[in-house]
Amino acid sequence: MGATAILLLSCPDQKGIVAEIASFIYQYDGNIVHSDQHTDFETNTFFMRIEWELDGFRIPREKIGQAFGFIADKFQMDWRLVFSDEVPRVAIMVSKFDHCLYDLLLKWQSREILMDIPLIISNHEDLRPVAEYYRIPFFVFPVTAETKKEVEQEEIRLLRQHNVDTVVLARYMQVLSSDFIRVYPNQIINIHHSFLPAFVGAKPYHQAYARGVKLIGATSHYVTEELDNGPIIVQDVIAVSHRDSVDDMINKGKEVEKRVLSRAVKLHVEHKVLVFHNKTVVFD
Amino acid sequence: MGATAILLLSCPDQKGIVAEIASFIYQYDGNIVHSDQHTDFETNTFFMRIEWELDGFRIPREKIGQAFGFIADKFQMDWRLVFSDEVPRVAIMVSKFDHCLYDLLLKWQSREILMDIPLIISNHEDLRPVAEYYRIPFFVFPVTAETKKEVEQEEIRLLRQHNVDTVVLARYMQVLSSDFIRVYPNQIINIHHSFLPAFVGAKPYHQAYARGVKLIGATSHYVTEELDNGPIIVQDVIAVSHRDSVDDMINKGKEVEKRVLSRAVKLHVEHKVLVFHNKTVVFD
Amino acid sequence: MGATAILLLSCPDQKGIVAEIASFIYQYDGNIVHSDQHTDFETNTFFMRIEWELDGFRIPREKIGQAFGFIADKFQMDWRLVFSDEVPRVAIMVSKFDHCLYDLLLKWQSREILMDIPLIISNHEDLRPVAEYYRIPFFVFPVTAETKKEVEQEEIRLLRQHNVDTVVLARYMQVLSSDFIRVYPNQIINIHHSFLPAFVGAKPYHQAYARGVKLIGATSHYVTEELDNGPIIVQDVIAVSHRDSVDDMINKGKEVEKRVLSRAVKLHVEHKVLVFHNKTVVFD
Amino acid sequence: MGATAILLLSCPDQKGIVAEIASFIYQYDGNIVHSDQHTDFETNTFFMRIEWELDGFRIPREKIGQAFGFIADKFQMDWRLVFSDEVPRVAIMVSKFDHCLYDLLLKWQSREILMDIPLIISNHEDLRPVAEYYRIPFFVFPVTAETKKEVEQEEIRLLRQHNVDTVVLARYMQVLSSDFIRVYPNQIINIHHSFLPAFVGAKPYHQAYARGVKLIGATSHYVTEELDNGPIIVQDVIAVSHRDSVDDMINKGKEVEKRVLSRAVKLHVEHKVLVFHNKTVVFD
Repeated sequence: MGATAILLLSCPDQKGIVAEIASFIYQYDGNIVHSDQHTDFETNTFFMRIEWELDGFRIPREKIGQAFGFIADKFQMDWRLVFSDEVPRVAIMVSKFDHCLYDLLLKWQSREILMDIPLIISNHEDLRPVAEYYRIPFFVFPVTAETKKEVEQEEIRLLRQHNVDTVVLARYMQVLSSDFIRVYPNQIINIHHSFLPAFVGAKPYHQAYARGVKLIGATSHYVTEELDNGPIIVQDVIAVSHRDSVDDMINKGKEVEKRVLSRAVKLHVEHKVLVFHNKTVVFD
Repeated sequence: MGATAILLLSCPDQKGIVAEIASFIYQYDGNIVHSDQHTDFETNTFFMRIEWELDGFRIPREKIGQAFGFIADKFQMDWRLVFSDEVPRVAIMVSKFDHCLYDLLLKWQSREILMDIPLIISNHEDLRPVAEYYRIPFFVFPVTAETKKEVEQEEIRLLRQHNVDTVVLARYMQVLSSDFIRVYPNQIINIHHSFLPAFVGAKPYHQAYARGVKLIGATSHYVTEELDNGPIIVQDVIAVSHRDSVDDMINKGKEVEKRVLSRAVKLHVEHKVLVFHNKTVVFD
Repeated sequence: MGATAILLLSCPDQKGIVAEIASFIYQYDGNIVHSDQHTDFETNTFFMRIEWELDGFRIPREKIGQAFGFIADKFQMDWRLVFSDEVPRVAIMVSKFDHCLYDLLLKWQSREILMDIPLIISNHEDLRPVAEYYRIPFFVFPVTAETKKEVEQEEIRLLRQHNVDTVVLARYMQVLSSDFIRVYPNQIINIHHSFLPAFVGAKPYHQAYARGVKLIGATSHYVTEELDNGPIIVQDVIAVSHRDSVDDMINKGKEVEKRVLSRAVKLHVEHKVLVFHNKTVVFD
Repeated sequence: MGATAILLLSCPDQKGIVAEIASFIYQYDGNIVHSDQHTDFETNTFFMRIEWELDGFRIPREKIGQAFGFIADKFQMDWRLVFSDEVPRVAIMVSKFDHCLYDLLLKWQSREILMDIPLIISNHEDLRPVAEYYRIPFFVFPVTAETKKEVEQEEIRLLRQHNVDTVVLARYMQVLSSDFIRVYPNQIINIHHSFLPAFVGAKPYHQAYARGVKLIGATSHYVTEELDNGPIIVQDVIAVSHRDSVDDMINKGKEVEKRVLSRAVKLHVEHKVLVFHNKTVVFD
């Protein structure tokens, strides 16, 4: 299959939306290869993801947005148009844990997740050899309470310079400031090592151990200004028992963390996630 | 929400199908409440389930089929039109095990599964009290090799008389003949107590125990003339270990069986299953 | 297999415990049929469940406790001796939801859970027909803030009169007072319809929906004076998506609730659960 | 915790086994840190795994086997004594797929799986860079029908020279001959990319796709002379739907394969698996 156009949209629900969009695509000889929609009846909101082949479509890609704008305005759509061959540019931020980083790199390398990784940023030197093995530029910015503001500005400058559109926090152990987060709204993906909203904050496995839970989980979510409270993209769990020490939980948890984060990143770079009212619509 | 029209269809994939269908519904003021589609690229086949409100739709329900027929012909569709307020009439066939029967009756009673159950058929008397408690007519037809042909004709007569459109084999321990099956193509749902295609045939838990598997499963599928080989609707598994005897496996299996069968019946009566090439497309 | 003796114990860990217990049983010709142990290295505590056949054991059952007392004292054990043929007497308390009640009754009837159910208590009349069908005495005590204290005393009197040793709250919608709870320490099993500690308190599915989680869960735990904070016995989850309304979550949740509660009750009546430091050791 | 002795045994069940073993350990001042047992009532066989600290134990490690031999003979035990600080030497055999190899190497590197990997053997050059990055000797033996016998002898020589005790087939795409297998009885671990016994043989994901299953799985098992029929150690599954192409299934399957294989290897090198009658007893 060649390159496709992907339209993601939400708008107040009303009659005729699908007819109008499908007719628009058909009128210019587009071949729809995937379409999914959802209506939230509580807020009366319509959501859609529709994908069609560019090959044979009679509007050149650079004009599609303009052509569609008329429909979008008519239905007061919040919308986004992307092309499958414009590979997302993803920066990974890490600290010392390597399991999520490795999982992302392996899936990037095997092309299970189609993305470019122009750089890796860390607050520690530890994972530089991993980055070097995969030949990805690695930047270290030690962070202290005093330097944080300044460091973040430096990081943002670097991300912009590399045309990054998505930031993945692969067990990055620093809390980003609101200033940073506002630069990448719903474009920063975090992995929290618990089944949110249980065990927010620090050391969730220790909390889980102390509470004696029988399952532990991981949650990937978009980062918002309220800590651990952004829109959830993927969650999963694994069974534990009284035989599991905190260390056992940490090891079992790693498996879930990497699986959950990779799944969320894949959904995101394939443009399958829409955010609405601090929740996600995931077209998978 | 009031009654809806549900259109289920498959046809060779080509441009313009969605536009045509969505425009048809919009043209007569229909409000789409659910739509899902799928394209099988191997066979170049398009599948769709689309549902819209009858209230306000400017074609009376008895004429919709006729009106849509023109589009259906144009695209060589295999299609079905149903209405959400025409509750499916489901006959349940059982032998002696009661767990699947109870699960279906409880979900029917609590309206989690919207269906009518005009009758229960069994080859044994054992479960009559259950049927009586729920005030559902209960018919017993003992089956032997000699009487089978005759008994099945009697059963079909009874099913027709009760306007049954779906037959659920809730651990019914007789194999239906091809003659029976042909009367209800893709309308007979069976629960096989293993993860098909592992352990086809009799006593799957004994087979699973002997093989020393670490998971046991259940499979609900439409009944076709080839035993245990019909289109799969739902499958699930549960963990077992060396500590589980055959009896433990049977008990654990019951949990999975009833869950899997109820899920399949719910999907079926909500018209969310399309059969194609001995496989299912499940719009859930 | 005939009746067995089951010994459940915990004590400070030290050398020789297993040797002493196993030698005691062997010395009197006991045949061990099951044994499991656990050491908590953080608190240096030893836990054990050991089960042996009474048939052939050269101490009569009524003297075993006395005979074992010597060993128990030596190791400062917290211990309990029960016999497999002394069937636990379980009272079920319900309000209006019937799914957990039915699941318990079906597993009681099919002898998957070996227990006696001498009575069902409710604060509403609704489920009386279910109790009557199964021929279990059904008592209704409407509860108001004013009458609560008095009603609970009445209930305790009734439970004692029926020699109840375990109370199962099968979606009983009243909070029990500390006075009630203290009468049955670690003998009251509750089902909380969320993955604790997420969503404590009222209307957890509404909370889960609002938060946009991708999994919902259920937790069975012993009731302690701190609400929703007792030792967890079993937890499980089920996937949800943006397509699930609150009602869908409630229905999916019911499946998990009944499964989790029944599993916890089965473990409890088979004497496989030890409570320690507000957590459970589950020998399954 | 210091080094421990681990005793794995099976024998005909009879009274007094646990008493004798526990007393033996206690008599020489051993401190038991883990013990688990199982009785198979069908074959009347007793299984045990018991682990105690060497520190303080009054028999030097090289004499424990001899000392225990007396008890072992008395009960006709099939037994094995290992020490936790004698790290298993594991050879990995691969072809071209790297996902299982990477997962094993990452867990080896992070010490989640405690083993030495003295060499990696392949029938292709492709994964040499991975081995080099981890500084593990990499040997390539192309295999053809003509050279197979000879090549295997070469490989066995190499494995012996490196004192290998376990061979892990991490998606090694050659069938080992009986001659090879007999050298490492229950010491060769394979990952089969299906839920055995469904889809034995080649291209299981293609078979699964054709059958339209709703779950795909992976099975790790010891290799025996009968293809895909050895004792199962770990199995797991993942959901698929009509939306998954064969390639999607392959990608989803990889996640399960690596998880299942790593879990099996970890259990094996921690001496938690006993084989009996072509099944496993897994003390996890």
